[in-house]
Amino acid sequence: MQLIKVAIWGFGAMGQGMAEMLLTKRGVDIVGVCDINENFVGKTVEDILKSDYQCQTPIEQDIDSMLDNTKPDLVLLCTDSFVKGAYHKIEKILKKKINCITTAEEMAYPLESHPEMAKAFDDLAKENGVTLLGTGINPGFIMDLMVVALSGAMVDVEKIKVERINSLSPFGPAVMEEQGVGDSLERYHERVKNNQLDGHVGFRQSVDMIFKGLGLKPSKFEQQMKPILTSIDRQTKYATAKKGTLAGVNMTAQGYLENQLFLEMSHPQQIEPEAEGVRTGDYIYLTGKPNVQMAISPEIDGGLGTIAVCVNMIPHVLNARPGLKTMLDLPVPRAILGDMRDMLDITK
Amino acid sequence: MQLIKVAIWGFGAMGQGMAEMLLTKRGVDIVGVCDINENFVGKTVEDILKSDYQCQTPIEQDIDSMLDNTKPDLVLLCTDSFVKGAYHKIEKILKKKINCITTAEEMAYPLESHPEMAKAFDDLAKENGVTLLGTGINPGFIMDLMVVALSGAMVDVEKIKVERINSLSPFGPAVMEEQGVGDSLERYHERVKNNQLDGHVGFRQSVDMIFKGLGLKPSKFEQQMKPILTSIDRQTKYATAKKGTLAGVNMTAQGYLENQLFLEMSHPQQIEPEAEGVRTGDYIYLTGKPNVQMAISPEIDGGLGTIAVCVNMIPHVLNARPGLKTMLDLPVPRAILGDMRDMLDITK
Repeated sequence: MQLIKVAIWGFGAMGQGMAEMLLTKRGVDIVGVCDINENFVGKTVEDILKSDYQCQTPIEQDIDSMLDNTKPDLVLLCTDSFVKGAYHKIEKILKKKINCITTAEEMAYPLESHPEMAKAFDDLAKENGVTLLGTGINPGFIMDLMVVALSGAMVDVEKIKVERINSLSPFGPAVMEEQGVGDSLERYHERVKNNQLDGHVGFRQSVDMIFKGLGLKPSKFEQQMKPILTSIDRQTKYATAKKGTLAGVNMTAQGYLENQLFLEMSHPQQIEPEAEGVRTGDYIYLTGKPNVQMAISPEIDGGLGTIAVCVNMIPHVLNARPGLKTMLDLPVPRAILGDMRDMLDITK
Repeated sequence: MQLIKVAIWGFGAMGQGMAEMLLTKRGVDIVGVCDINENFVGKTVEDILKSDYQCQTPIEQDIDSMLDNTKPDLVLLCTDSFVKGAYHKIEKILKKKINCITTAEEMAYPLESHPEMAKAFDDLAKENGVTLLGTGINPGFIMDLMVVALSGAMVDVEKIKVERINSLSPFGPAVMEEQGVGDSLERYHERVKNNQLDGHVGFRQSVDMIFKGLGLKPSKFEQQMKPILTSIDRQTKYATAKKGTLAGVNMTAQGYLENQLFLEMSHPQQIEPEAEGVRTGDYIYLTGKPNVQMAISPEIDGGLGTIAVCVNMIPHVLNARPGLKTMLDLPVPRAILGDMRDMLDITK
């Protein structure tokens, strides 16, 4: 059997991490990479990766020629957070009859937040006989799929609380800027006012996925952002948060069922949380019959987690029926320690 | 759309629990129940259940007439732990072109432990256009599916340790007898010698499921049973373990990869574990990139968990392609709080 041919569109931290992961796996080949970053012109994958892996696949600027020449089985699309930005890219991939996994947070469950686009994608994927999936560690896994999966061992569910308390310390300057790290309270309020601070993207999608998974419709969805002010100086390789400035932001969200609070989400992200005694972790509290209380501490690493979930879903996407899928529709992701081709359903 | 028609074969604790659960759900009907227990002759479901639910479905002794008259979409088979005992029952169900979910522990992953029977079931299910699944809380969910699912957020896995420390206190006399509760050490050794003490059934299947899920083949599988002796008197509603006798048994198992220990399983089950300071819970330790450490404490209730996983998998089994499936092949189970029919894939 031929190697599974994967292309990567967007060669930032996530795209590079996926390339590195793929280079350790058997049965799969990185046939093409596309990124518009001018620093990458004339370079190959091994030139950019900070590791010893060999891969002379060039980083190309023209997506059409890359896809047409390499004819991948699947594209890992790592360019956008929002459906709006990813729309035409996904459309292009599907029209070329190529399967797609995207990290775009809003694509993890667009069926309720973007119903028309979701319908258009589903139709287009089916017309072209390919499958589209949006996923990552969050949304896509820890604050939604795992909640749904644990509810599977319950006769009834009355209430749900989900917390992801994580450290931003390993991340680079782009994430620090997105999360307001080091901002004064004044600058934070100005950025919020001007819609320049997104914080975590994907709560709406996680809430929709959980409700839909359990066969429910939320009567209301709400979301809040609050600054996390540090009472001491905090320092990482890429960021400084002086006493009194933002160490990060705390996002919270609620899903209501017939106007009763049913689902609470909490996701404070900050640099150096240990500095003020905050213990990081992923927590899921399901109240019902029976109660189920899960803790993963420390939290699942956000960068590696997103890279792994996307790559580990490749065989499931190739096996799936055509259309727009979510993590609710497919078997669970799993670490691939053998040959990736052995996970393909040849009876498909 | 018609109600989903479910029949239950075996009306012990599990079958009764599933009936009670189904009676709280919308979109599904219990069309038939079969059990050879003579105490059930002439009785209906509501006569037996210790609850206020109304259900006048009779408990029948003749499985053929029950299945032929009620024509269920799916049978919940709750009669056996071993493939050997369940074989002809499953064969009968599949030949009548009825989907089947069974609690038989060895059916949770029979592909390696019983390859010929598994192949025969897969062929028979496909010939008859129906789907067969073995599942439950363990094997089927907490010590295998959840391990595989968490590995999905990992780039690489080096080693796995899984522990389920649970209380037997809620269980009845049959389980106490199976687990040796109250036995003297002498009687324990005698029962082990005569193959009269099974302890937990399903480690082999869980180990196979994890290895197969990750694309690996174990080079060796080992399993041990040890008595848990109590140093104080312990008492439950159904059992007594005097000081010096068995409070339960501790099962352990190991899976080796190229003769290196890769997977460790530990499952001590006893009455009143708190009496000697044992904290119950489900624990999964995945070593790799990144490490993932999960704790669910107290453990997911074994009885309710098995009931819930089996019932919650009904729509997934009805949606699946024909054949013998495992929890690795299907989407994650989820609590069904809406109409069960809304979870059917009408485009199938």
